[in-house]
Amino acid sequence: MPIAKRHGGVRGVVESQITQRVIIAVILINAAALGLETVPQVAAHHGPLLQAIDRIALAIFVIELAAKACAYRTGFVRDPWNLFDAAIVGISLVPHSAGLSVLRALRILRALRLISTVPSMRRVVSALLSAIPGMASIAALLMLVLYVAAVMAAKLYGATNPEYFGDLGSSLFTLFQVMTGESWSNVARAVMDHHPWAWLFFVGFILVCTFVVLNLFIAVVVRAMEEGEAAASQRAAHPDKASQADITLLLAEISALRAEIQALRKTHGIPEEDRSGQSVS
Amino acid sequence: MPIAKRHGGVRGVVESQITQRVIIAVILINAAALGLETVPQVAAHHGPLLQAIDRIALAIFVIELAAKACAYRTGFVRDPWNLFDAAIVGISLVPHSAGLSVLRALRILRALRLISTVPSMRRVVSALLSAIPGMASIAALLMLVLYVAAVMAAKLYGATNPEYFGDLGSSLFTLFQVMTGESWSNVARAVMDHHPWAWLFFVGFILVCTFVVLNLFIAVVVRAMEEGEAAASQRAAHPDKASQADITLLLAEISALRAEIQALRKTHGIPEEDRSGQSVS
Amino acid sequence: MPIAKRHGGVRGVVESQITQRVIIAVILINAAALGLETVPQVAAHHGPLLQAIDRIALAIFVIELAAKACAYRTGFVRDPWNLFDAAIVGISLVPHSAGLSVLRALRILRALRLISTVPSMRRVVSALLSAIPGMASIAALLMLVLYVAAVMAAKLYGATNPEYFGDLGSSLFTLFQVMTGESWSNVARAVMDHHPWAWLFFVGFILVCTFVVLNLFIAVVVRAMEEGEAAASQRAAHPDKASQADITLLLAEISALRAEIQALRKTHGIPEEDRSGQSVS
Amino acid sequence: MPIAKRHGGVRGVVESQITQRVIIAVILINAAALGLETVPQVAAHHGPLLQAIDRIALAIFVIELAAKACAYRTGFVRDPWNLFDAAIVGISLVPHSAGLSVLRALRILRALRLISTVPSMRRVVSALLSAIPGMASIAALLMLVLYVAAVMAAKLYGATNPEYFGDLGSSLFTLFQVMTGESWSNVARAVMDHHPWAWLFFVGFILVCTFVVLNLFIAVVVRAMEEGEAAASQRAAHPDKASQADITLLLAEISALRAEIQALRKTHGIPEEDRSGQSVS
Repeated sequence: MPIAKRHGGVRGVVESQITQRVIIAVILINAAALGLETVPQVAAHHGPLLQAIDRIALAIFVIELAAKACAYRTGFVRDPWNLFDAAIVGISLVPHSAGLSVLRALRILRALRLISTVPSMRRVVSALLSAIPGMASIAALLMLVLYVAAVMAAKLYGATNPEYFGDLGSSLFTLFQVMTGESWSNVARAVMDHHPWAWLFFVGFILVCTFVVLNLFIAVVVRAMEEGEAAASQRAAHPDKASQADITLLLAEISALRAEIQALRKTHGIPEEDRSGQSVS
Repeated sequence: MPIAKRHGGVRGVVESQITQRVIIAVILINAAALGLETVPQVAAHHGPLLQAIDRIALAIFVIELAAKACAYRTGFVRDPWNLFDAAIVGISLVPHSAGLSVLRALRILRALRLISTVPSMRRVVSALLSAIPGMASIAALLMLVLYVAAVMAAKLYGATNPEYFGDLGSSLFTLFQVMTGESWSNVARAVMDHHPWAWLFFVGFILVCTFVVLNLFIAVVVRAMEEGEAAASQRAAHPDKASQADITLLLAEISALRAEIQALRKTHGIPEEDRSGQSVS
Repeated sequence: MPIAKRHGGVRGVVESQITQRVIIAVILINAAALGLETVPQVAAHHGPLLQAIDRIALAIFVIELAAKACAYRTGFVRDPWNLFDAAIVGISLVPHSAGLSVLRALRILRALRLISTVPSMRRVVSALLSAIPGMASIAALLMLVLYVAAVMAAKLYGATNPEYFGDLGSSLFTLFQVMTGESWSNVARAVMDHHPWAWLFFVGFILVCTFVVLNLFIAVVVRAMEEGEAAASQRAAHPDKASQADITLLLAEISALRAEIQALRKTHGIPEEDRSGQSVS
Repeated sequence: MPIAKRHGGVRGVVESQITQRVIIAVILINAAALGLETVPQVAAHHGPLLQAIDRIALAIFVIELAAKACAYRTGFVRDPWNLFDAAIVGISLVPHSAGLSVLRALRILRALRLISTVPSMRRVVSALLSAIPGMASIAALLMLVLYVAAVMAAKLYGATNPEYFGDLGSSLFTLFQVMTGESWSNVARAVMDHHPWAWLFFVGFILVCTFVVLNLFIAVVVRAMEEGEAAASQRAAHPDKASQADITLLLAEISALRAEIQALRKTHGIPEEDRSGQSVS
């Protein structure tokens, strides 16, 4: 009982609006401090201050996550957002020797904790992620096309244009660049100096990629639409939509009819046997 | 009473079609004069004329706004378009010393008064502005991604490529450029000379941004669609649809009717000849 | 009567499938000949032949249009496609002195006659043109933004970067280029060498243009959708769509009822007076 | 009978899940081997191994296709996917002399067999291909515009800018590049040095192409939507809708009924007491 109570108390503190706002403020201050570190003048004058802010912020994050883990125990690892937070904070805790400047640069990823902390951001990112499965097979197709084209280009143009198609890696990068439409004419013209028919390869590749990307895009739009429509049609499910007035009229006419026939029968003195259960009114 | 009348009169004049057309003409002439000022030959020969046109147009705008403010009093500041007009005209009234050539350049903003004066333009801009709230959270996400990537790039590549990633400002500008797909391969290849794995950063950044921008776009399209459909479904409320429940009721009523009539006939001893095939039950 | 007959005959010839196919063949041959003229080797060897083909094709077009004009008289000028054809053919008839090499280059416009001659092309172009009115006010807004930005840029950056913003014309062209996203970073970086805050102008301009173009695009999509839906809902207006089976059942039940009542009345010997016109069956 | 049985057996083996998975594995291994061949270091050390893998994979493909052809006989050539597979494998069987290095590069096309082998990829590609007919006439229009512009540009600018517009081929390639928006400003500025009015040509060409491509895109989106909606409306075929015409018929039938019954009662002399308010007519 006291343990449950303590847990309840920790949960209350962790989930309270004030705690959330404090955490958001710490994230923003930390992001600003890390940003200012990259401005040479500021870093030269206020370097120690910025580093102190960074360490305090990191300490607050560690305490917050520990409190959450303590409050929810096994439930903590079930929420993927918690794992996201833990991974981001964990990166900063890895003891980084002088060589791993990449790890120091990754500290700014902590700003992404805004996504898991601000509810509206979390919703947007969840919606974005939910669009991914619908794109999977077209994305796989695109990667297949890119790979095939890269191997082909490396074989055909690798010898004459090694700066673009020297090996598989360069070739993949160059064709990714062509796929985004960036300076593809420079690449194509450089290759066409040696291979006059290379325009066929480039124009074909661009047309195929554009077409596939276009359809990838459409798949996402249509899926978004369908979800929108499904929601709309649920809203529109009134069962009494249309010619209610006419139906009412029909029912009134028919009950008037029955009244007439009953009156007719009464005057003839007919008993009401054998009809129980058939009548509706 | 005379004040109200005077107001009514001023309002009538301010809102009359003739006044509106005169104002539109003045805006167009003023815009043309400011444009011609930037053509060196014309400015050299007709400079004083163009400046005179500009001053007269400004005077007309000031009088018009003063008349409107006088006619609507407190109502004037409630219409945001009036504030827009006042701000644009106000810029030109700030006494600009020689240093503030920016203020002189901003005089052309008065051409934007076309938006507040021509009704169809006003509608279009209102529609555009109404699309903004639906984009707010995705735009915030995009800015967060841009900021995080900029700080990271400044840390990682600032020392080797200061022209692109020297400080936070340059880094933000360069990554905005990469986000628009403009010459990103030049930037990436320059960085990859020093950091062979930098392609991971650039390709990842482009994919994330493209994906987020794509979804930003879709959010706007779907919202526009839904508004269109809401309008369409209101139009489509035809009165010629009935519900299953009512039809069932009808059938029950009618079969009750038949049972009554059959009972009626039995008591009269009428034979069932000549009706085979007509009955349904 | 003989005139009408002659007209009918000419019309028949002009509109016959054979004539149409001949004209399409002439257009294609003419287009190919004009294309081959631009290949230096071919032009050197077969120049006179290509020119002869061009003149014969022109003669055929003139005869065809004259026949059409003769057959339809005033009706000829009412069809805008005829005016389009006449304008395109007319360009080639203008006596071009040596200076007007542009007129010679415009001969290839005759290939556009394919649009007016092939029915499916004509439909596509009509559909494209019908999308224009829906875009008019957003296009006007875009032009206004472009003009205002061009005048402002010419004032602000004309002195330091005359190659991009020297006068109104250069400035408009450069900003159109920026609007299409083409090499805008080169322009922006060149200007930022002199005006460090110019990034504000360029980023703002790009964001506004992207946003307006995005909405221009959406306006066109939504309009296309609405037309598609209007057509779909017309198709869906079958009067026998839904509970046809139930309605049939109802009608059968009721007509069985009437048969019973009529049988009832016959046995009582009631005459059928005063009911003519009321019965449905 | 034994032949049929043998066929059945071969079909069973060919279509079994295990065979399919083996083939997919062979495709992936083959694609990886061909990719590694383009990495100079790997090719230098493991060249013979990679070539052996390639030959074994080719042998497996030939055996698989032969088994399929044997199992389905005439049915084999009716499935376009089989022809696709046969063509891809066939390319590698052509005896390639030293000169045809292109054929060697085309071996990687075998990786595209993934499309015909993995069911989800096959569906995606079928869906993509089904979108093509709806785009045919707009694509034809785009090619016509490109051809006309290319001939015109070759005539007008071929003499002054031979690197871009020297002959029909260069001109087509350059304008395809302009159409994709790639470095068009470089081309345009180079031409404008000699022809100050060339901006008219380029801006016009870009606007026309953008507009046509936009509509091509919309055609595809709208078609995708309509298919989505057609599927949705089939789902939504509730049986609870009736048509106005039928309801009118029902009302007429029932009022005829009432008229008969009233006539019946009149002949019996029944008074109309106790029914006021129930009748509708």
